[in-house]
Amino acid sequence: MVDAPAQVRPGGRSAKVRAAVHHAVAQLLAEEPAEALTIPAVAARAGVHPTTVYRRWGSAAQLLGDVATSRFSGDVVVPDTGTLAGDLERWLGDVATDLTDPDTLALMRATIGSGPEGGCACIGDRHEQLSAMIERERSRGGRTPEVESAVDFLLGPLYYRAIFSAQPASSDWARELVATFLAASEALA
Amino acid sequence: MVDAPAQVRPGGRSAKVRAAVHHAVAQLLAEEPAEALTIPAVAARAGVHPTTVYRRWGSAAQLLGDVATSRFSGDVVVPDTGTLAGDLERWLGDVATDLTDPDTLALMRATIGSGPEGGCACIGDRHEQLSAMIERERSRGGRTPEVESAVDFLLGPLYYRAIFSAQPASSDWARELVATFLAASEALA
Repeated sequence: MVDAPAQVRPGGRSAKVRAAVHHAVAQLLAEEPAEALTIPAVAARAGVHPTTVYRRWGSAAQLLGDVATSRFSGDVVVPDTGTLAGDLERWLGDVATDLTDPDTLALMRATIGSGPEGGCACIGDRHEQLSAMIERERSRGGRTPEVESAVDFLLGPLYYRAIFSAQPASSDWARELVATFLAASEALA
Repeated sequence: MVDAPAQVRPGGRSAKVRAAVHHAVAQLLAEEPAEALTIPAVAARAGVHPTTVYRRWGSAAQLLGDVATSRFSGDVVVPDTGTLAGDLERWLGDVATDLTDPDTLALMRATIGSGPEGGCACIGDRHEQLSAMIERERSRGGRTPEVESAVDFLLGPLYYRAIFSAQPASSDWARELVATFLAASEALA
């Protein structure tokens, strides 16, 4: 009989190291400018040897990408309200609420700043979730917008406000975005 | 007679230092990961003393903000084609083209990563330019969308693709965005 490899044993040492390192990244970003986020600083905070972090993540950019992907996947529930409008309004409102959290924004900014792949990591499973809601409406026989235009006109304005604008992206405003988007899709169909 | 202060004399030493430091930031970002952009590294590349850079900009974040604001203001010409659709298509196409340049994107990512004010600095005078085109159409007596919704539905999708998505933001696609936006504004008016 062969032992399962240590790095995939759930709750094993490897999972504990990962949790401690992810937690240390979140703590450091909440406390200090992103430039203070170095692998030695993360390792010290997590109570592990820097070599462990280098060996597993390679660089601060890859570590941030891993933290962001895991933070922004599965964190927002796909609602099932019975209508596409209801689903999108609740979902985009929840995503908007998350984007008003200063710690969320600090993680996003640091991840974007870490390199070309950072931005995608900050989107996590948002496109798959949008696609699932639109697909469900289609299977009910409803007329649906394209996923690509939902990404452009719902996630586009929301993430633009969160990162590029001084205007807050409130959840009320996000729900209005959904109403405008669906009305425009209907009018132009 | 009182001499003009040295720091505002055009072409004076202060202007030369500023140009050299801005140029050094652009060069370093094109060559190395953003984390290598420290004030000592910028000063060495620009051939000035680090103290000069610290005294004038205070931190790498403020320096990046200054470089981005100046880089993204006045760099795109506001066209005057005679119609709002023509103006917006040419302008957004030019903004999109700029966002396909890897050096532009590297400056934006580093500036966003440098702190909460970084994203706004990357927008430079884009909102004022949008507003000027819409205002001109209004003064011609045309029906016009709100500047705020033009920001949401034109700049939103464009900057989302540039930073968060693996999909390129081509200038052809940007021109289609304008057509969709104006048709939707008309339909929902």
